Amino acid sequence: MDILPGILDILEEASGEASKIIRLQFRKNLEYKLKTSSQDIVTDTDISSQKIIRQIISNKIAGLGININEVGFIEEESGTDTFKKYNFIIDPLDGTTNYSGGIPIAAVSIAFALNKEITLGLVNEPFSGRKYWAIKNEGAFLSDDIINHKKLVMPIKPVNKWLISGHYNGSEVYKEQFSMYEKIYPKILGLRNLGSLALDLCMLADGIFDVVLNRGCYLWDMAAASLIIKEAGGDLYTFEGKPLVFNWENFKMKCQVIACHPQILKQFLDLSG
Amino acid sequence: MDILPGILDILEEASGEASKIIRLQFRKNLEYKLKTSSQDIVTDTDISSQKIIRQIISNKIAGLGININEVGFIEEESGTDTFKKYNFIIDPLDGTTNYSGGIPIAAVSIAFALNKEITLGLVNEPFSGRKYWAIKNEGAFLSDDIINHKKLVMPIKPVNKWLISGHYNGSEVYKEQFSMYEKIYPKILGLRNLGSLALDLCMLADGIFDVVLNRGCYLWDMAAASLIIKEAGGDLYTFEGKPLVFNWENFKMKCQVIACHPQILKQFLDLSG
Repeated sequence: MDILPGILDILEEASGEASKIIRLQFRKNLEYKLKTSSQDIVTDTDISSQKIIRQIISNKIAGLGININEVGFIEEESGTDTFKKYNFIIDPLDGTTNYSGGIPIAAVSIAFALNKEITLGLVNEPFSGRKYWAIKNEGAFLSDDIINHKKLVMPIKPVNKWLISGHYNGSEVYKEQFSMYEKIYPKILGLRNLGSLALDLCMLADGIFDVVLNRGCYLWDMAAASLIIKEAGGDLYTFEGKPLVFNWENFKMKCQVIACHPQILKQFLDLSG
Repeated sequence: MDILPGILDILEEASGEASKIIRLQFRKNLEYKLKTSSQDIVTDTDISSQKIIRQIISNKIAGLGININEVGFIEEESGTDTFKKYNFIIDPLDGTTNYSGGIPIAAVSIAFALNKEITLGLVNEPFSGRKYWAIKNEGAFLSDDIINHKKLVMPIKPVNKWLISGHYNGSEVYKEQFSMYEKIYPKILGLRNLGSLALDLCMLADGIFDVVLNRGCYLWDMAAASLIIKEAGGDLYTFEGKPLVFNWENFKMKCQVIACHPQILKQFLDLSG
């Protein structure tokens, strides 16, 4: 039995309910706590969102013939992560700094992995209603109030039309990032920093961004969107230009990522290095 | 007779109709033409938006007892700008690069000036429905589906809670900007570049951003939002920390601006210089 359509339904419901909480608490809940650094924060909304997602998945998964004891949860805001046969990798609120500051750019990201292979990814943008998702070997898709429903295929553009999204967290990496910007900025159309990596990666899959750079991210920020990008024709790399391999054993490790179409990777590295 | 409430009604209608065009043509009209540089572009939507705004103002202004011959239009996409007794300063689509690339972050900005004094400013965000406006000596306001209606008063936050918005256009300025970022980035909460100055400035008035930096902007990007910021308690400065004075005689001149609360200007300049 193909369980993926059933899982997708559950993820749509879970991310939809989480999105409601995120909208309702927006600008009513501006307090945050520090996590690993003064630029890494969490709000009560992150926690509420994670709770409802886990609850909906837990309640519905038996309906697909899956034993809850075989289900693992890898969550940003949790200390109880365990790998099982069926795994959900959850970022309940990507863009917490935006959200806490009052910028309505954020996302709910949920990936589903069979053992350690991601086969389904969904990213829900609570403020616009945009939903990006992908199913392994079936493609990546966007549904949206404005442009309805479409299959995503990443275009390849000339350098002077590139929009690059760049973000960095923590003071150990920013100088390298700004040095890269200095080299490439005069050659491209523009540089943005919208503050949500999951959304940035979806916008890459959607042909809006041409390169996404992030120094200071985690597995849960990228899990769902990594499949969306791959199914749209792109890929994720290290800053040395090697394929990015998720470290499932040490999944709380901070990562750095370059995401783009494979055919422009060398050009980007040459222009920015 | 106080004409400002009547002018505000006209600007709401004009910016509302322009916003409809912007939403309808979004992602259907991705071609653009270059203007002053490879990072300064215009689309057909900019032109259509400007046309409807000018048309609505022209049609309605006589109803307020104002002779159309006394009305001047300073428009981004026009060669026929003239100053009169009553002047409208129009940016029909701020964030053209976002819009053209498919990022739904943009604004319609209209200011009204009695001679050269801006007495009314309205910034309409087509994708979220947020509207920011200000009337000289009466305050700055936001109306929004999510937070309804509120009067804006700029807060003063400690440096480690600052969100800074930075943008730059053109290759003559970017090195200075990145050098500034390198110094201040480790001390603040975050740095963003959303790609619409008019919106950035409104988000400053709204307490979301704490400092807005822009190297490569024009009178029409700032006219409406400058009043919104001033009415909320902030101000606009040059990069030397002097008050920014609009050059009405040479209004197509490229400007640089720092906008913030007057009480944090010195601190910002010390930390970034």
